[in-house]
Amino acid sequence: MARTSLSGFPEWLPDGRIVEQFVLDHLRRTFELHGFAGIETRAVETLEELEKKGETSKEIYVLDRLQALKEAEAGRGRPSEHRLGLHFDLTVPFARYVVEHANDLDFPFKRYQIQKVWRGERPQEGRFREFTQADIDVVGAGTLPFHYEVDLPLVMAEALNALPLPPVRVLVNNRKVVQGVCESIGVSDVEAALRGLDKLDKIGAEGVREELAEASISAAQAGVLLAMAGIRTGDPREVRARVEALDLDGPTDLLATGLDELCALLETAGERMPGAVVADLKIARGLDYYTGSVYESEIEGHEDLGSICSGGRYDSLAHEGSRTYPGVGLSIGVSRLVSRMLSVPLVRATRSVPSAVLVAVVDEADRARSERAASALRARGIPADVAPSAVKFGRQIRHADRRGIPFVWFPGADGQADSVKDIRSGEQAEADAAAWRPPAEDLWPRVEAAK
Amino acid sequence: MARTSLSGFPEWLPDGRIVEQFVLDHLRRTFELHGFAGIETRAVETLEELEKKGETSKEIYVLDRLQALKEAEAGRGRPSEHRLGLHFDLTVPFARYVVEHANDLDFPFKRYQIQKVWRGERPQEGRFREFTQADIDVVGAGTLPFHYEVDLPLVMAEALNALPLPPVRVLVNNRKVVQGVCESIGVSDVEAALRGLDKLDKIGAEGVREELAEASISAAQAGVLLAMAGIRTGDPREVRARVEALDLDGPTDLLATGLDELCALLETAGERMPGAVVADLKIARGLDYYTGSVYESEIEGHEDLGSICSGGRYDSLAHEGSRTYPGVGLSIGVSRLVSRMLSVPLVRATRSVPSAVLVAVVDEADRARSERAASALRARGIPADVAPSAVKFGRQIRHADRRGIPFVWFPGADGQADSVKDIRSGEQAEADAAAWRPPAEDLWPRVEAAK
Repeated sequence: MARTSLSGFPEWLPDGRIVEQFVLDHLRRTFELHGFAGIETRAVETLEELEKKGETSKEIYVLDRLQALKEAEAGRGRPSEHRLGLHFDLTVPFARYVVEHANDLDFPFKRYQIQKVWRGERPQEGRFREFTQADIDVVGAGTLPFHYEVDLPLVMAEALNALPLPPVRVLVNNRKVVQGVCESIGVSDVEAALRGLDKLDKIGAEGVREELAEASISAAQAGVLLAMAGIRTGDPREVRARVEALDLDGPTDLLATGLDELCALLETAGERMPGAVVADLKIARGLDYYTGSVYESEIEGHEDLGSICSGGRYDSLAHEGSRTYPGVGLSIGVSRLVSRMLSVPLVRATRSVPSAVLVAVVDEADRARSERAASALRARGIPADVAPSAVKFGRQIRHADRRGIPFVWFPGADGQADSVKDIRSGEQAEADAAAWRPPAEDLWPRVEAAK
Repeated sequence: MARTSLSGFPEWLPDGRIVEQFVLDHLRRTFELHGFAGIETRAVETLEELEKKGETSKEIYVLDRLQALKEAEAGRGRPSEHRLGLHFDLTVPFARYVVEHANDLDFPFKRYQIQKVWRGERPQEGRFREFTQADIDVVGAGTLPFHYEVDLPLVMAEALNALPLPPVRVLVNNRKVVQGVCESIGVSDVEAALRGLDKLDKIGAEGVREELAEASISAAQAGVLLAMAGIRTGDPREVRARVEALDLDGPTDLLATGLDELCALLETAGERMPGAVVADLKIARGLDYYTGSVYESEIEGHEDLGSICSGGRYDSLAHEGSRTYPGVGLSIGVSRLVSRMLSVPLVRATRSVPSAVLVAVVDEADRARSERAASALRARGIPADVAPSAVKFGRQIRHADRRGIPFVWFPGADGQADSVKDIRSGEQAEADAAAWRPPAEDLWPRVEAAK
């Protein structure tokens, strides 16, 4: 389904693109129904802007004008100073956009953004170097109410669970809970604790204990952290009881706040979308830069795919002078999701072209008659193609069949009615291009669960 | 409307993006109604592939991994050999896609492709360095019937003329006519003749005469070429009569073929879309690589914008070994078009957010009630947002008003009905979120002609 002559740059055949477009259209519609405004930012940012986010900056693709490089090589000039790179996520550009256009935006500003991003991963890693992300964020000027930390993961859970996929769960944790537990047991190097816990799935509890020991975290402290990391439940009372049962040296205010937030999130999510959101206290990725809730996700039966939707709360998505813009957002890895949908396959497109109808051509000299029929269908919203040449009808029908076009239209000779044939059943009937409609399920290609 | 902190990289505010998205959706729908399958290609191609098309190769943006550059600078490694650049049009990538996936495609293959492209123009030229193109092409395996040279410009004329723009005309010429005229009057350096004629609008007839003289084209020959370039009409009989009236040394077979094609195109276009297509024999751009029909376009009253839709017929869009893939296609410069629509302005969006309804929040403790009303609306396809906080209703209404949201929804207290207010008229009425609908024209933001 996917062919990649350049490793890491996926490309779909037309029927794969129908599936991808279906996913993109569905996400866009869900985001718009929830009031998110669509924006696009330029593909490039200055290196200065990109390098602010340390973690991924090593994967930046830098741009140079070929002409400037050639001139520099020939000693006639030098590479431009104002160096540009391709964005590697949609958060850095969004933060820049918010600051740059702050005077023209209304806050809180809810936006969605669906664009390609690029990461110059080493070729051997077999990861995507170009892929599409679909992000939603809400950003406030100065303040942002907590309820958005509940609302946004539910928008994503709704979006993903309406796709033809096994159930998708959003997993949540809260920076304040983890940091509060660390504080209460005397672990001051929170980042080291997070780095250790983040490896739990890979190296197991024993491995994590060793890692933590190297960071001068005692066995007793490690025991509490691992007990915390074992808490996974959608029930807010259970979360609260199990955190309170940890061997803590008295809970801190930070822990109390974090626990209230986490439980409020689970409570509301449980009312609005039962089963969609689960607390998972071993989530540590992102906790170094998020300041409140953090989100990951998993598709039932496809846990190996990793999190295809992640995000969290920032107290300062962006700032300019004394103005700060707190935000909360999540990002879907669309290419990774679509790649899995196509490779299993979980879904298939009912055809590889938009056309519901192929209008046959009886005689090349009379192509205009076929074009008129096609125009009449299109004017009524029915996608229609006209046969490339007036070969035998059998070959024209095969042209439709190969592409999955369900109907072939035969223009009648002067004074005679047109007719339309369902090439799946073989049924043929007289029809008028100004009145006939295909069944609704045949109008456009559909994406259906693969058998 | 457009802010560009980086010169040449346009970015729109949310209401500008609504206009751009409207144009993109409209183009996509038109292309799909005509049976074109959508594809996307990766943003990068190898430099080898990009440099095959000489004309624009000087504008290529080359990519390098920042990490590789740093390692090279530190003397630990060297820049990668397999160098990549961003595509500067959608034709080069499409040709590569066709060859690469030939075994998985059905020919003739009709595709549309709407993507960003990048050109590393010198900053001072004030031209876009990132912009969106919308292309349609049909490509055959070995052969491609002439009628596609008629069909494709009509698809574009239909697409553009349904937008809120002044009338758009497609201008056509034919390589065979121009080359045939050259042959018949003994001009062997056809490229020089084309280069000269291409400057007619800039330097006038006298200037062109001087240019042609430098290429050893005689005054008499130049006179014929300029007379030819003066032919502009939608009437095929007039085209034929005026070409035949040129002072030719006997028409050649090539000229006869070209004239037949050009007249057939005008004839059919005149029947299917009167007035949309006009022959303009001074069009010379692209004639060096196209082999049959060539297309440009103009928007009435916006001729200064140049051609926003251009293309032509290739006898060999791509080839591999002895297989050739003839094609015909056109490309719309979407960013240039949208930029003009927004800057005049020719259009405006009726609001800057998708929401038709803002659901007010009476009391923060009762936010769930507002969320339930919003969910009920969304479930019926009505875009709805919920107020950020339970401030005074006046402020909640202002929140809607600033964004152009026409309706504010007030959830009723227990046992009382909800109500909805049209904040433009001030009318308020009881309403049920499971039944109420906004007027169709208020459901989604619309793009309307600016007053």
